[in-house]
Amino acid sequence: MKSLKIIKIGGNVIDNPEMLNQFLRDFGQIEGYKILVHGGGKKASKVLSAMGIEPKMVGGRRITDENTLEVVTMVYAGLINKQIVANLQEFKCNAIGLSGADGNTILATKRPVRDIDYGYAGDLSANSVNPDLIESLLQSGLIPVFCAITHNGAGQLLNTNADTIANELAKSLKSYFETTLIYCFEKNGVLLNPDDDNSIIPEINFSDFQQYKSQKIITDGMIPKMENAFEAIEGGVKEVIVKHARNINKNFGTRLY
Amino acid sequence: MKSLKIIKIGGNVIDNPEMLNQFLRDFGQIEGYKILVHGGGKKASKVLSAMGIEPKMVGGRRITDENTLEVVTMVYAGLINKQIVANLQEFKCNAIGLSGADGNTILATKRPVRDIDYGYAGDLSANSVNPDLIESLLQSGLIPVFCAITHNGAGQLLNTNADTIANELAKSLKSYFETTLIYCFEKNGVLLNPDDDNSIIPEINFSDFQQYKSQKIITDGMIPKMENAFEAIEGGVKEVIVKHARNINKNFGTRLY
Repeated sequence: MKSLKIIKIGGNVIDNPEMLNQFLRDFGQIEGYKILVHGGGKKASKVLSAMGIEPKMVGGRRITDENTLEVVTMVYAGLINKQIVANLQEFKCNAIGLSGADGNTILATKRPVRDIDYGYAGDLSANSVNPDLIESLLQSGLIPVFCAITHNGAGQLLNTNADTIANELAKSLKSYFETTLIYCFEKNGVLLNPDDDNSIIPEINFSDFQQYKSQKIITDGMIPKMENAFEAIEGGVKEVIVKHARNINKNFGTRLY
Repeated sequence: MKSLKIIKIGGNVIDNPEMLNQFLRDFGQIEGYKILVHGGGKKASKVLSAMGIEPKMVGGRRITDENTLEVVTMVYAGLINKQIVANLQEFKCNAIGLSGADGNTILATKRPVRDIDYGYAGDLSANSVNPDLIESLLQSGLIPVFCAITHNGAGQLLNTNADTIANELAKSLKSYFETTLIYCFEKNGVLLNPDDDNSIIPEINFSDFQQYKSQKIITDGMIPKMENAFEAIEGGVKEVIVKHARNINKNFGTRLY
């Protein structure tokens, strides 16, 4: 079975032009089938502020009202996505930028209103990703670059978490490819000591994770990230690697299996 | 030979949500291979103003400085393109939004500075369009939707005239398809009397055009539009139709041949 790497970069890479440029050069050199998924970074909040719209966050999650949806669509699907694609083209990597609406690749549902109304936030389910078109783009030598915008199939664009997109892409493409999911973030991997970037845990499975969690070695924001990762493995993804964006082509990071 | 329709809509359609929605419904019903090319409309100027950036125009053409390029990339490739794609998906038309950077489909060169520095404006040449990928997307049942953003192959995005993009797409795809180019605009066609929208000239060739021009029947902004159209026909496009967006599926307009 052919192998596929799905790599997710977040705001810390997007917001640092030098790091982003180096990452895209390195990404261009990865052999074989690959997909890039990118988050948004601070630019959307900057554009919202410049336009006099106050960014609304609850518990670290953006509330996507109508104006905010316009701005995140502009920034994620327009500015950031096309700039990444143009830079990858410079590095001879034949990228094609996609939202979930393009080719109906990712169909989401608007998040139901419970305690909080997240507005135009899109949730994904097991059948959200249409893998056939993505597979055929990969086969024809293209490198899909997904932004965190999806649609509901009825004309509504939706703001969707980029980690979730990466996960669902990985799970849905498992019938075509042996899939590795790589989360790039601002640390070298899962660390034994959060203050020592060299204290990388090289490999970790679900029962190790449970133990590290009970020992309070893995805490805070790492917990949902790891839970997402193990959920992907549960869903048939071969492995998940957590590493720093600068180490994308280096054997340096934590392997979840 | 298979036939292909390339349809260009401008600001007058984009700026009118009802007209745009009806147009997209009608576009969805067109049988056979088709491509949509869209301009920008007034939204980019609105976003520029909201962000405190003064829109700069010389002789009706936008001067694309660095901030302006950011905004037109956001608005054309992000907001407008993805909203059109999501609406077409609603109408069961499997659209895929593209800038010229995506799949390296359209390669432009930055306009040389002569009397006026147009900034990040992209000019196209006979070899700008890479038709192979576009043909393969069409063959796989996708409907390409192009915005007016291209790239230079070295990481620079460029703002490019949408009429020019439609023309170069039409000319470059002629080896695969018998290509009809359709310009939608705010009149019913080329008119004998600009104040009478029913005075449509049904058919016109280049020598008719020269005559109408010398008789001052065709004047002002119609002249460059017609010259572009005849240049496409010269370049191997089968025919060019000029009509109102609301008549896209009606036999109502002017045929240039």
